Amino acid sequence: VFDIDGVLTDSTIIVDSINEYGRIMNVKDGYALQLAVKKNYNIIIISGAKNTFAAERLKKLGIKHIYTAVHNKKDLLLELSNTLSINLNDSLYMGDDMPDIEVMQLVTLPCCPLDACVDVIKIAKYVSPINGGKGCVRDVIEKVLKLNHHWE
Amino acid sequence: VFDIDGVLTDSTIIVDSINEYGRIMNVKDGYALQLAVKKNYNIIIISGAKNTFAAERLKKLGIKHIYTAVHNKKDLLLELSNTLSINLNDSLYMGDDMPDIEVMQLVTLPCCPLDACVDVIKIAKYVSPINGGKGCVRDVIEKVLKLNHHWE
Amino acid sequence: VFDIDGVLTDSTIIVDSINEYGRIMNVKDGYALQLAVKKNYNIIIISGAKNTFAAERLKKLGIKHIYTAVHNKKDLLLELSNTLSINLNDSLYMGDDMPDIEVMQLVTLPCCPLDACVDVIKIAKYVSPINGGKGCVRDVIEKVLKLNHHWE
Amino acid sequence: VFDIDGVLTDSTIIVDSINEYGRIMNVKDGYALQLAVKKNYNIIIISGAKNTFAAERLKKLGIKHIYTAVHNKKDLLLELSNTLSINLNDSLYMGDDMPDIEVMQLVTLPCCPLDACVDVIKIAKYVSPINGGKGCVRDVIEKVLKLNHHWE
Repeated sequence: VFDIDGVLTDSTIIVDSINEYGRIMNVKDGYALQLAVKKNYNIIIISGAKNTFAAERLKKLGIKHIYTAVHNKKDLLLELSNTLSINLNDSLYMGDDMPDIEVMQLVTLPCCPLDACVDVIKIAKYVSPINGGKGCVRDVIEKVLKLNHHWE
Repeated sequence: VFDIDGVLTDSTIIVDSINEYGRIMNVKDGYALQLAVKKNYNIIIISGAKNTFAAERLKKLGIKHIYTAVHNKKDLLLELSNTLSINLNDSLYMGDDMPDIEVMQLVTLPCCPLDACVDVIKIAKYVSPINGGKGCVRDVIEKVLKLNHHWE
Repeated sequence: VFDIDGVLTDSTIIVDSINEYGRIMNVKDGYALQLAVKKNYNIIIISGAKNTFAAERLKKLGIKHIYTAVHNKKDLLLELSNTLSINLNDSLYMGDDMPDIEVMQLVTLPCCPLDACVDVIKIAKYVSPINGGKGCVRDVIEKVLKLNHHWE
Repeated sequence: VFDIDGVLTDSTIIVDSINEYGRIMNVKDGYALQLAVKKNYNIIIISGAKNTFAAERLKKLGIKHIYTAVHNKKDLLLELSNTLSINLNDSLYMGDDMPDIEVMQLVTLPCCPLDACVDVIKIAKYVSPINGGKGCVRDVIEKVLKLNHHWE
């Protein structure tokens, strides 16, 4: 389970149109995500922001469960764990800011990028050596897939 | 009170349309700003540049006092302190460049990002360890709100 | 032979339009590429992604062999080595991620940027001290042209 | 006299439209340039690339002598030194790449950003501690204006 802003992006918002803002994402994260989908991992994206463009790109990578403009991430994940039969004791969540804290506490492996906020770093069980948007998602997916001999 | 360019942005101007230029802002700053507004802090934005797009985004975060294309920041802040009954002895201003210096001298806590210009760093009472646009605004707001037990 | 994403770009994808995504390229790489073309080096670009905009720019630099949306980079390079009479024992390939590995093993001088993925770094014979999109292509072209007294 | 790409920008080209490419410029450079114009310094911009958008922004800062798509920078500067009665023995040129070298040799104070190419660094008399697009132009202008008591 991944947050978008600050995890799949470098926290940047490109402010150049009044309607909706651009984001900066990473090709190496994208490679890992599409491979994980191919190997049948459940990938879930939960973002508090609208993030239409990022969601559109993540969809192209083959990800089916993308939720944006989510007000309560915890409630959504609890609901998804039921409907999708996901075992949270076998799940990883990577977030970077305050609204991620209570969701991170639901899963066995709460992770965060190196530049997450202080309170998130405190409760993470794995802090990636890589910043948000620079490959931190790639880092955790590559590690998990290699452990399971799924990294081709 | 916050400046935009170099404080809420990384001093970057995206030059790709003749009419008006894009800026790069930060999601973590945004989280802190909307929380401060919710906790009833007076947040004021004063920018010397036009900055239509940045202003639009800051408005969406709930900030009501956004002033762009300001020629004399000092006069404006003095005026606002009257009309909004703001006590400058209880105020923080974060700026990064020469036009901010005389406004910074009006408030009790003049702050700046790590990459402010030399003359601003000299007169700041707090230099954030974080660069402009990379979370320096988040840094000072998080510190103030935590001191006041307003950081959720 | 150069990959685009992560080599001629900094792995960044600018996600701000639903149709196709922007990339960030480097002027110093561009200078070296156009000079190499002028000196009659065979420059080949092979990208797994669609990369219409990057391809368009590379074309303006004078590069004739640009292949995007390539599914099997190895097959394409073997085919090109025949049709263009390129000696792979006298060739350099710079890539940064998993799909580049089997192509890199075809050439005498497999190279990569400093921020290539771990498995690519392992098999590279030259790891540039420069990251993707920050001048790593310039670095290898400048080195080769200087050795051959072609760097004006 | 300043080059654009790699000096007034961070060498970045934003490749997201087929027609012409965006650049990333710096607000602190802009502040210094408009101040130098106000204090009656001759500011000249010479770029080998088309750079329509950057030129447009520099014009808004009050700069009158902006030359883009220049094939021979040396010939142009020699011509300008006549028509504008500029003394090259009293001039500064900041460039970052090979086409700047022969122009740099015309002036008394050839400068470059920290991340200029090796051959430019070799012939520069002042290497700014700051990279292109990150305030290197600000650095040299601030130094010159402070020496002349023109930095307000």
